[in-house]
Amino acid sequence: MNKQRIERAQAILSEMDAHALLITSPANRQYISGFSSAAGTAYSTDVCLLHEGGFDLIVAPIHVDWAVGEAPLASSVLSHKGGMVEAVAQLIHTRGYRSLAVEADALPYPEAVKLREAMPDVDVRFSTNLRASLRNSKDTSEQKLLERAAVATDEVFESIVPLVAPGVSEAELARVISSRLLAVGDGLAFDVIVASGPNAARPHHRPGDRVLEADEPVIVDMGCRIGGYCGDLTRTLYTGHPAKRYVDYYRAVLDAQVATKAAIRAGAAVSDLARAADESLRSAGLGDYILHGVGHGLGLEIHETPSVRRESDDTLPENAVLTVEPGVYIQGWGGVRIEDVVVVTADGCRTLTTAPKMLFDD
Amino acid sequence: MNKQRIERAQAILSEMDAHALLITSPANRQYISGFSSAAGTAYSTDVCLLHEGGFDLIVAPIHVDWAVGEAPLASSVLSHKGGMVEAVAQLIHTRGYRSLAVEADALPYPEAVKLREAMPDVDVRFSTNLRASLRNSKDTSEQKLLERAAVATDEVFESIVPLVAPGVSEAELARVISSRLLAVGDGLAFDVIVASGPNAARPHHRPGDRVLEADEPVIVDMGCRIGGYCGDLTRTLYTGHPAKRYVDYYRAVLDAQVATKAAIRAGAAVSDLARAADESLRSAGLGDYILHGVGHGLGLEIHETPSVRRESDDTLPENAVLTVEPGVYIQGWGGVRIEDVVVVTADGCRTLTTAPKMLFDD
Repeated sequence: MNKQRIERAQAILSEMDAHALLITSPANRQYISGFSSAAGTAYSTDVCLLHEGGFDLIVAPIHVDWAVGEAPLASSVLSHKGGMVEAVAQLIHTRGYRSLAVEADALPYPEAVKLREAMPDVDVRFSTNLRASLRNSKDTSEQKLLERAAVATDEVFESIVPLVAPGVSEAELARVISSRLLAVGDGLAFDVIVASGPNAARPHHRPGDRVLEADEPVIVDMGCRIGGYCGDLTRTLYTGHPAKRYVDYYRAVLDAQVATKAAIRAGAAVSDLARAADESLRSAGLGDYILHGVGHGLGLEIHETPSVRRESDDTLPENAVLTVEPGVYIQGWGGVRIEDVVVVTADGCRTLTTAPKMLFDD
Repeated sequence: MNKQRIERAQAILSEMDAHALLITSPANRQYISGFSSAAGTAYSTDVCLLHEGGFDLIVAPIHVDWAVGEAPLASSVLSHKGGMVEAVAQLIHTRGYRSLAVEADALPYPEAVKLREAMPDVDVRFSTNLRASLRNSKDTSEQKLLERAAVATDEVFESIVPLVAPGVSEAELARVISSRLLAVGDGLAFDVIVASGPNAARPHHRPGDRVLEADEPVIVDMGCRIGGYCGDLTRTLYTGHPAKRYVDYYRAVLDAQVATKAAIRAGAAVSDLARAADESLRSAGLGDYILHGVGHGLGLEIHETPSVRRESDDTLPENAVLTVEPGVYIQGWGGVRIEDVVVVTADGCRTLTTAPKMLFDD
């Protein structure tokens, strides 16, 4: 399985017309090598050097052992005791490479400068968006892990529904959810969001001391990781008998989600998905309440490409995995967001999340 | 309180001889402004522009509301709907600033290039190590939060001691610990480490399916966050009656910790701390088993400056908060690490962690 991934990366390298590619994002390095340090971060000095013959890992001295264990296909695992840049320059020199592409999306500026200075005879080129070409389309083993993360997250959601009631604070609820997510997964995919009443008007609200009251919306956004892969589920609940205003918003957001899913298929323009969601909410008179992108790629990272926005130039590859999460956010009142995870298929999409929609189960 | 922090940052800006300073690390931005998005990450596009008159926040559209709430002292909170770089360039232009220092430690290379290109008339300088000058010395409110995080972490440790026994897997134990840490704090300071038997020879071991056996060492490294501040505690336990070899290692590591603490005082050279630990372990014949730095600064981030290493040129300021965590790591057998958190005082240090040392309580 990993051999196919290495070959895919080598094909990208070949298009870059460079002797080697320095992979600096932990997720891309894990994808290619299996070595999983610094998961969930954007950059690490545990890096991967990809070339025609395979790949090498250059890692912190205390990670050598770990890398050897997780990356059986590595040509070599080197320790960068004297600094990552120095070790990479040494290896490039030893191998006689004359050109080096460097993944730069999250590479800190001082490291980029040092890399160029350490290899004056090498054509060092900074490159971006490797993630998209490498990982937008998920292979079978990735889809299985994403499905497991979705199912485990769904189960935790169902278990906490009875707790979403007046009297509990957002922070208490978030702690219970986090604790249960950790009981079923390797970790949290992101910090749990519990946004109640007027706080539900903030898409990224951090749970605080506010105590849930009767007759208000509560947005719960949560996910565990399994095998490094992220779950990501949002449901909106209501503490009491749903008021007409809430039901109207909820129906409109669900309609927007259905419309967005209907636009999904391999080859579709990502901008068309965003347009479908927007137009559905606008036709319900809620165009002023859109604050948030419609979705994002999901995998080893919680926010991957493509970002589902009207400005996107991307098209959807088959087997991309996306969140679909339209929402409305009304200052002073609250909000509604409904989020599922889907796999893009040749002629549509398959929804991985199965948690009940609470108000109108589909 | 925050006013003093702003003044400290302004004094640093004044030494930089620039009109404004763009703060790009979430921890530094939170320290100065109070706005806490992207906590625990190295870089975010929610940035802070510091200048003679105070500071502005330039944040994602959906974070404006949140930033306004958490940062009452901000001169303004601007949305960067069209991109962070563009919004910053616009603000610099409007204000007529001719020079801009940019915090570059974690600033991605592509963003740095865009910043320079967006302001051709501005003297843009990339600067590093702002964290050290700004936050190495912790103020009273920071020390209180660090102490609360230490105490809460200690309590969770004491509660899980009875569970460290043959038959439980590392991963199960890590889940229980994580869950209990989340019950007392806002979040995890880092992924919990449970390293049993031979796995204890890896300082950053990730807990796996290995089941604890009788008569082996188990390293537990854990911490919650409170108010954004990190706890960080390591204890080593033994499943059974401690074998002589284990007791010898344990005593040597504890001696090294005592020797390191004895070298701590305001004004001390950081390299002397590292030397004290190394020499203590060497005198016990364990010099070959040192794999790991002796400690690091602790605060809003889990790894802050100073890094306690022999190569360090730093001196300790009063009120710095450090981990002191010597250890020995023996391939095939396991390891011992003992970690406390201390506050540097004028003539010594004060230990914040109070969890029992298990073998020899001090």
